[in-house]
Amino acid sequence: MPIPAETFFLSGDREATLQQQIQQVIAEAILSGRCLAGEKMPSTRHLAQHLGVARITVTNAYTDLVADEYLVARGRSGFYVSDSAPQRPVLTPEARAGVVPLDWSRKLGQRFSDAMPVLRPANWSDYRYPFIYGQTDPKLFDHANWRACAIRAVGRKDFDSLATDHYERDDAMLVEFLLRQILPRRGISARPEEILITMGAQHALWMTAQILLTQRRTAVLEDPCYPGMRHILNQSRCQIRNVAVDGWGLPPDAIPPEADVVFTTPSHHCPTNVTMPLARRRDLLARAERDGFVIVEDDYEFEMSFLKPPSPALKSLDRAGSVVYMGSFSKSIFPGLRIGYLVAPEPFITEARALRSMVLRHPPGHMQRTTAYFLSLGHFDAQIARMARSYRQRRAVMEQALRDHGLLDAAAEETFGGSSFWMRAPEGVDMGQVALKLRQSSVLIEPGEAFFAGGAEAKRHYRLAYSSIPAARIEEGVALIARAIAEAQEEA
Amino acid sequence: MPIPAETFFLSGDREATLQQQIQQVIAEAILSGRCLAGEKMPSTRHLAQHLGVARITVTNAYTDLVADEYLVARGRSGFYVSDSAPQRPVLTPEARAGVVPLDWSRKLGQRFSDAMPVLRPANWSDYRYPFIYGQTDPKLFDHANWRACAIRAVGRKDFDSLATDHYERDDAMLVEFLLRQILPRRGISARPEEILITMGAQHALWMTAQILLTQRRTAVLEDPCYPGMRHILNQSRCQIRNVAVDGWGLPPDAIPPEADVVFTTPSHHCPTNVTMPLARRRDLLARAERDGFVIVEDDYEFEMSFLKPPSPALKSLDRAGSVVYMGSFSKSIFPGLRIGYLVAPEPFITEARALRSMVLRHPPGHMQRTTAYFLSLGHFDAQIARMARSYRQRRAVMEQALRDHGLLDAAAEETFGGSSFWMRAPEGVDMGQVALKLRQSSVLIEPGEAFFAGGAEAKRHYRLAYSSIPAARIEEGVALIARAIAEAQEEA
Repeated sequence: MPIPAETFFLSGDREATLQQQIQQVIAEAILSGRCLAGEKMPSTRHLAQHLGVARITVTNAYTDLVADEYLVARGRSGFYVSDSAPQRPVLTPEARAGVVPLDWSRKLGQRFSDAMPVLRPANWSDYRYPFIYGQTDPKLFDHANWRACAIRAVGRKDFDSLATDHYERDDAMLVEFLLRQILPRRGISARPEEILITMGAQHALWMTAQILLTQRRTAVLEDPCYPGMRHILNQSRCQIRNVAVDGWGLPPDAIPPEADVVFTTPSHHCPTNVTMPLARRRDLLARAERDGFVIVEDDYEFEMSFLKPPSPALKSLDRAGSVVYMGSFSKSIFPGLRIGYLVAPEPFITEARALRSMVLRHPPGHMQRTTAYFLSLGHFDAQIARMARSYRQRRAVMEQALRDHGLLDAAAEETFGGSSFWMRAPEGVDMGQVALKLRQSSVLIEPGEAFFAGGAEAKRHYRLAYSSIPAARIEEGVALIARAIAEAQEEA
Repeated sequence: MPIPAETFFLSGDREATLQQQIQQVIAEAILSGRCLAGEKMPSTRHLAQHLGVARITVTNAYTDLVADEYLVARGRSGFYVSDSAPQRPVLTPEARAGVVPLDWSRKLGQRFSDAMPVLRPANWSDYRYPFIYGQTDPKLFDHANWRACAIRAVGRKDFDSLATDHYERDDAMLVEFLLRQILPRRGISARPEEILITMGAQHALWMTAQILLTQRRTAVLEDPCYPGMRHILNQSRCQIRNVAVDGWGLPPDAIPPEADVVFTTPSHHCPTNVTMPLARRRDLLARAERDGFVIVEDDYEFEMSFLKPPSPALKSLDRAGSVVYMGSFSKSIFPGLRIGYLVAPEPFITEARALRSMVLRHPPGHMQRTTAYFLSLGHFDAQIARMARSYRQRRAVMEQALRDHGLLDAAAEETFGGSSFWMRAPEGVDMGQVALKLRQSSVLIEPGEAFFAGGAEAKRHYRLAYSSIPAARIEEGVALIARAIAEAQEEA
């Protein structure tokens, strides 16, 4: 198939003849790498028709380009981009002669690229010992059934759900299933007006911050906490108070009186994995009622409570309507899905729906409907059970390895399962340095510093996840980590 | 299958016995509609196990619930939700006794739901004469091939693209095809670092406004323009200057000197459909270079230039790097897809990528890969050709009908095609009123007022699209519109 004639336009250069203009644009296309060696050019007739010029003009341009070795003519079959076509120097000039390029550094009104925390390299799966968090293990994912659901969701019967502009609405089947089956497992009963589908938990957190916070309001963050959360609040320019968590999560007594919004992860604190006990949850809610602050509950990893049954969500105890609740399928199905949900009183959901609509309209109908099928056909529960079995096994292997290598006593003890250990190295060890060094041995770990607001203790911490590493490699990986820490300790 | 035991939790009410707590939560589940008549309850053994109570406690609770007619016992098969179970009054109380519900009106820091313009009812497809814009006609959409591409994109080979956390990256296949095939048709050559996949054009516009505008900066909007655009800028609280378009689009001379960012739709002005001539484009770019403002080009409906070949994008003439360009597949594939793209100098794309990542991470990999297949296998071009043929025919039918009913002379003449007519009613006619009245005759038209910044002329305008109405119904629909306008004129 030749390069479509429609991809060429006259350069519009008033100093040049039509033929010269044609030569310019074709040469430019070849130089810029858009047309590659060996590709067939449009026929002279097609190109002439498209550009509205005489065919002889195109023929003459082609002939000149052959002379310049941009093109080769192959008898009757036409013109091709030459294998020996001129190449542009690798450094393309920023602008053409006589033009002053716009100074973009002065045009950017707001910057977002500054402090984005990155915890792992994009090519993590090339590493032999990836102790990293939140990525899918292809072996645990029920690809066959997901595929069957996706095929069903793209069928003729579901055309509307796939193709239609949903405006502000969500997929009714998905909402229904969440209300009737998923939320009740967390002890939550809600009306359809109190739920909104989001592009994952990140999107839910971001919207919540936009709606609840201004420069004059105060947000309370757990310390340590999910780095993406702190990034969002830094961007929103609200006041931030960091409250250190203890062995039972966020201590309600430490919440300052000026708090407007409190962000918390009671089911599994991120990253320490501790679970907030029921008594503390009641205290937190009572305090919210008394002081009038909003609680944002990220119900992080509740599905992964394989060591004890999960406790109901904070939201299930929320009698005054103080809690904005969010969940996600990114960890339990796969991160590329980008489907999560918000549950909150209707006035909040109304604003979130309008904000979502302004920013992106709605999550794609196809992804919502596929998720609805995957949930309603029971595949989700089966997958959770399979993951829990596997994580339980990996966790046991890991616990043994950590014990054998003298690392376990330093780990915070958690009690509900999860997919990672939150660890602390001996005093003076900088786990950021250790993590970088471990990459040379094909080991990936997550340094803990990014989770903290600051402080000298931060560098000692690290997270070891077992969601992406096969059980058989855990022992070797832990041995390498233990050795690297011991070496760092000697140097310190 | 019985209702899962895992969906019930003890209410935790300290004043109540365990048995009473169980009765409370089950009654609540039935009253709230979560458990429906005829559904089977979990076995007493399962529920007792899950709640950690004696089995006799659950049995006693069930027996009491039978007495209250919440449940019925069916011999050995167990307990079911009763057909005559009590029902909750429709108005649910806002909170339980003794609890002061949170006053959400004081908790919302920013509101987004205020002025969201809605141009059409969600059930538009139930109307017989839907002269509405931007919705998919299922008859024109190549559903079979889209489905084949979606199935391929969910195959094992593409697992990574589907499931992986893409972080900040886009689907390489989609980016490659855009760079090599789609953008060149617009005369644009770009490097991979200069492109970002978005959740449709709305998302691209929103990100652009966040990055370029602050409260101290000035945006220029075309008047009239896409109402969603004005909504975004109102929310961003920047300074707004409205510049009236004429028969050739935005007049560069009318751009005020304080402009920082100019939003324009040169290919097809939205909503008037006029195309900006080449000379004016050059003027606009020269002015941008001289005064240092950024141009945001929404390359709206360029695919629908079936009356004349499309002119190259403004971006193709952009030598100084002043233009941020955006395109979308929402109109040409389907709106529920939510895939579009931004092309701009690298410093801008870097910020857009970071912003996108903070707000939602990335558009789902599956939608990106499916689009890439649909484009690269040539289905997209075939669909555009089919749509263009159909639109051309509908447009001819519509033009004739408008002429026959004396409406055409009021329409702005456009020259490139598109999918709608921009219309003006006689003086004094309020097309908002006419549109409401026409709904009773199953006719949907779009009143023009929402497109304007204000002014007395706004109410006279309306848009008639032919992208969603079959050709055979156009004549009848236009006749109804003409009659309604004539009646309104008599009353005026």
